[in-house]
Amino acid sequence: MRVSSVRTVAGDTLALCREDGLYDLRAVDASLPDGVGALIAGGPDLVACAGRAANGATSAARLDEAALRYRPLIERPGKIICIGRNYAAHAREGGAEPLAYPDVFMRAATSLVAHGEPLVRPRASEHFDYEGELAFVIGRRARHVPRPDASTIIAGYAIFNEGSIRDYQRKATQWTMGKNFDGTGGFGPDLVTPDELPDGAEGLRLRTMLNGETMQDGNTRDFIFSVPEIVAILTEVMTLEPGDVVLTGTPAGVGYARKPPLFMKPGDVVEVTIEKVGTLRNTVRDEG
Amino acid sequence: MRVSSVRTVAGDTLALCREDGLYDLRAVDASLPDGVGALIAGGPDLVACAGRAANGATSAARLDEAALRYRPLIERPGKIICIGRNYAAHAREGGAEPLAYPDVFMRAATSLVAHGEPLVRPRASEHFDYEGELAFVIGRRARHVPRPDASTIIAGYAIFNEGSIRDYQRKATQWTMGKNFDGTGGFGPDLVTPDELPDGAEGLRLRTMLNGETMQDGNTRDFIFSVPEIVAILTEVMTLEPGDVVLTGTPAGVGYARKPPLFMKPGDVVEVTIEKVGTLRNTVRDEG
Repeated sequence: MRVSSVRTVAGDTLALCREDGLYDLRAVDASLPDGVGALIAGGPDLVACAGRAANGATSAARLDEAALRYRPLIERPGKIICIGRNYAAHAREGGAEPLAYPDVFMRAATSLVAHGEPLVRPRASEHFDYEGELAFVIGRRARHVPRPDASTIIAGYAIFNEGSIRDYQRKATQWTMGKNFDGTGGFGPDLVTPDELPDGAEGLRLRTMLNGETMQDGNTRDFIFSVPEIVAILTEVMTLEPGDVVLTGTPAGVGYARKPPLFMKPGDVVEVTIEKVGTLRNTVRDEG
Repeated sequence: MRVSSVRTVAGDTLALCREDGLYDLRAVDASLPDGVGALIAGGPDLVACAGRAANGATSAARLDEAALRYRPLIERPGKIICIGRNYAAHAREGGAEPLAYPDVFMRAATSLVAHGEPLVRPRASEHFDYEGELAFVIGRRARHVPRPDASTIIAGYAIFNEGSIRDYQRKATQWTMGKNFDGTGGFGPDLVTPDELPDGAEGLRLRTMLNGETMQDGNTRDFIFSVPEIVAILTEVMTLEPGDVVLTGTPAGVGYARKPPLFMKPGDVVEVTIEKVGTLRNTVRDEG
């Protein structure tokens, strides 16, 4: 199942994404919530309920895509946890050797942008870089999860463009500021449930295209820390909760490491495509 | 005004803290919310309403302190933003020169502990260190706030013990993991509104006592980045929202920099006292 958080003229709703278009799951079952965040907060039973509604969605529930906008897949995650340097080739292009323990930082919800909405290049800097990443979303509250059980706490997978303001990322030792400018983190379009993907989302090609040109071309089989390892490492430290979002790092090919460096500018179109997951597409505009 | 989030046998409520004890503000005005987070989310008008209730609180609203527990002052902040190395002497004890731009990282709500509740030493490590800090809480949604206007977005001040697992903090370049173990961040007891303190909470003595012995003895006049400067620096990057919490860094005297290093262990009592703000007191227990 693929579900999105969308805004229509009739209000916010939970959309089912099929090959032939989008369907309003609340038109099938009015007891369903109005977005993916609330769906996941409702627990596995509510997700199963959405699955039954998905099976019953007919053309009467069809949404007009021209008349809707996506919202960030989950608008107010309790945590957005980012794993840095999780592809060896990307670690090396930034001048670092792959680590034995992941570099972890956090983004805030104020940095999120929906699929189809513009990413914002801030007034403060022109060093606005893309980072295509696989995201996973937590479905069940958990601590101390061993690797073999990791899949039991994952509600689904999605795509994130972990937009980074490089000069602010490097102003101090901690990267948080460069990773938290308002409107720099693309997130969506759909939550893809794990049954649609290989175990741990392994072996998926990930590409980032800027104005149609391939900038990043990686594969999740090259993760230094796999999804189950990330779950085990994070839950040794902290409780993960429904709706928490974990970003798995970006492959080589980011703009700042190119010669000459390449940054995103207003009017650019950036797309992150992950095999079997989908395509997250955003344009870039200036903060104004 | 000083207000707390407490839990009584009758349920959660918003407490007024006076020299002579605690008062239930919802017993004065039933339209008030049940905690400080919801009070601040309601905006300045609701805070003013609490102020009127505070003036009307009589002994009928008195709470039995023996029969209540504190909750974390704000249970689910949208962001908890930490300023690292904001006292020159502490930066130097950690081997770093003071920075021209602050080191910023984030904590998650899952790390919060209320005043009077035990801090948790995790299974993973015995390197559990205290960090007494002044916190401020945002009262109004804001971006691009110049220094002279910073005070207009602050709802109040509080105390934070930014408990840190030092070996996990140093496992990679980013400190997030060592700062986010469940139950390691003491937060409370009261929100103190700005009218009770000097402008920008300047010139306040901050002490951390471990089992009655002074471990840290600093003063907020020694901030590298003042409260108004922090507000300006953060809002250049991101929108601050009501209930967001900002921690202003810790003075010299942390345990890991002592010779020999000193870490907290089960049964320890740790108190952070900030002049005119109050005392945050916690014991330490093992995760179990």
